[in-house]
Amino acid sequence: MTLEKISANKSYEGELIKYRFKSAALGGLPTQFNLYLPPNASEKNVPILIYLAGLTCTEDNGAQKGNFLKTASAEGIAILFPDTSPRGAGAPNETDSWDFGVGAGFYLNATKPEYSKWYNMLTHVTIELPQVIEASGLPIDWSRQSIFGHSMGGHGALTIYLASKTKQYRSASAFSPVANPSKCPWGEKAFNNYLQGGTEEGKDLYDATELISKHTDPAHILIDYGTGDNFYKQGQLLPENFLKAARGAGYDEVQVRVRSHEGYDHSYYFISTFASDHIHFHANFLKA
Amino acid sequence: MTLEKISANKSYEGELIKYRFKSAALGGLPTQFNLYLPPNASEKNVPILIYLAGLTCTEDNGAQKGNFLKTASAEGIAILFPDTSPRGAGAPNETDSWDFGVGAGFYLNATKPEYSKWYNMLTHVTIELPQVIEASGLPIDWSRQSIFGHSMGGHGALTIYLASKTKQYRSASAFSPVANPSKCPWGEKAFNNYLQGGTEEGKDLYDATELISKHTDPAHILIDYGTGDNFYKQGQLLPENFLKAARGAGYDEVQVRVRSHEGYDHSYYFISTFASDHIHFHANFLKA
Repeated sequence: MTLEKISANKSYEGELIKYRFKSAALGGLPTQFNLYLPPNASEKNVPILIYLAGLTCTEDNGAQKGNFLKTASAEGIAILFPDTSPRGAGAPNETDSWDFGVGAGFYLNATKPEYSKWYNMLTHVTIELPQVIEASGLPIDWSRQSIFGHSMGGHGALTIYLASKTKQYRSASAFSPVANPSKCPWGEKAFNNYLQGGTEEGKDLYDATELISKHTDPAHILIDYGTGDNFYKQGQLLPENFLKAARGAGYDEVQVRVRSHEGYDHSYYFISTFASDHIHFHANFLKA
Repeated sequence: MTLEKISANKSYEGELIKYRFKSAALGGLPTQFNLYLPPNASEKNVPILIYLAGLTCTEDNGAQKGNFLKTASAEGIAILFPDTSPRGAGAPNETDSWDFGVGAGFYLNATKPEYSKWYNMLTHVTIELPQVIEASGLPIDWSRQSIFGHSMGGHGALTIYLASKTKQYRSASAFSPVANPSKCPWGEKAFNNYLQGGTEEGKDLYDATELISKHTDPAHILIDYGTGDNFYKQGQLLPENFLKAARGAGYDEVQVRVRSHEGYDHSYYFISTFASDHIHFHANFLKA
């Protein structure tokens, strides 16, 4: 599990570093991630925010287009950008479509035998990456983690946050999340293909709306979406379902805030517009 | 010359719009550009800043990765992102290398007959795009233009600014510009292949260091480069030559400021770090 440094770019006085390693969670395949270290990481361990990207993305999209680094530098927070799936598994149908398989790991652990050797993005993000990075001696304070993401990655951030029994994350946020995947085509396809129990299994383990409806611990969640988002219009995101379930479970808008933005779409032009809001939101908890 | 709208993305309360049209300057080939309109463009004509991208880039790189839109929105300035060359000309050797031909138009008008029908990025940027956009009725105040760019596009911005007899631009700035192209491999290759007179012709018309040394009008120029930039180390950029020529011609650091940044490289991670500085710099002149 040795980290190989691929590149480093100075940005906002900190450094964005790309690493590669052989991932046990992903069946021994090589995987890459980007890690942004703010300038104060040269003096002390810093808190970390994990960014989960959406369908078709890699570890680069959020780093290049998200406009997260400026505020992360100012706030003194590291950002980890994992990839979105294993690559090179050769599993059945993994490259046939853009919403399943390569680039579309859905941040779950597959239980179908055709995929379960490689498609374990949940373990990769929540256990393996922290272990590997900590073992390498990089200056991260792993007692202070939060998580956010976009679209499929917003689904990942919300479900990982809500399902964590160990309260590994202090806060979660999402841009345009797939918020009720057991009720939308993307989620149904993923659950039915990755999971032996299909949508029923996914509903219990990996559906943010289902999870928040049964959640009882305090929550710190921010969600933004745009009304001009075609995937929102097509019913892939369903943020209203999540909001209704959260209110039904007793969470007020201090604990679960869902914001609708007139005319914004699903792109990084939307994400970058509200990027600073999300970093500042997490800073409230990461720096407390 | 009808503009075809390809896409529109709301960003920072303004809108980034991608257009396509058949370019007379580029031999009748279709070309694309992005135009960012800040929110106040819905009320009045706004000043415009033209961003020229570097080798291998398209109209998208600056828009997606430059981190220019946030400050442009706040300052009320439009940004025009042209492509970097004609595409689809079928001219000799135009796709053989990444530093000549497609993606590498060098913001000049070719004089060699094999290229002169299509490779006229100078006319495209300085005359055609303003005409086409103005004719379409978009809310731009063309009496207030400035220009900036990166690498090959920094070369373009500086030379276009300095060579403009009509004082079309109020200010120029550049990230990591090819500042003395008649003395570096990229510039020599471009001049010798696009221009009948080769490097000698290029030196007189398209070399920022040569142009500033003979310039007498007031100048408003900002240049940033990183000392960790491999192209700087390889002698492709030569910003010191430009600085020396500017000081020799009597320009002080209020008129021509060249800043060196320890450890930064040639990437958009560098550009985005100093993006706001450049927008604010141009706002001083565009909003005066």
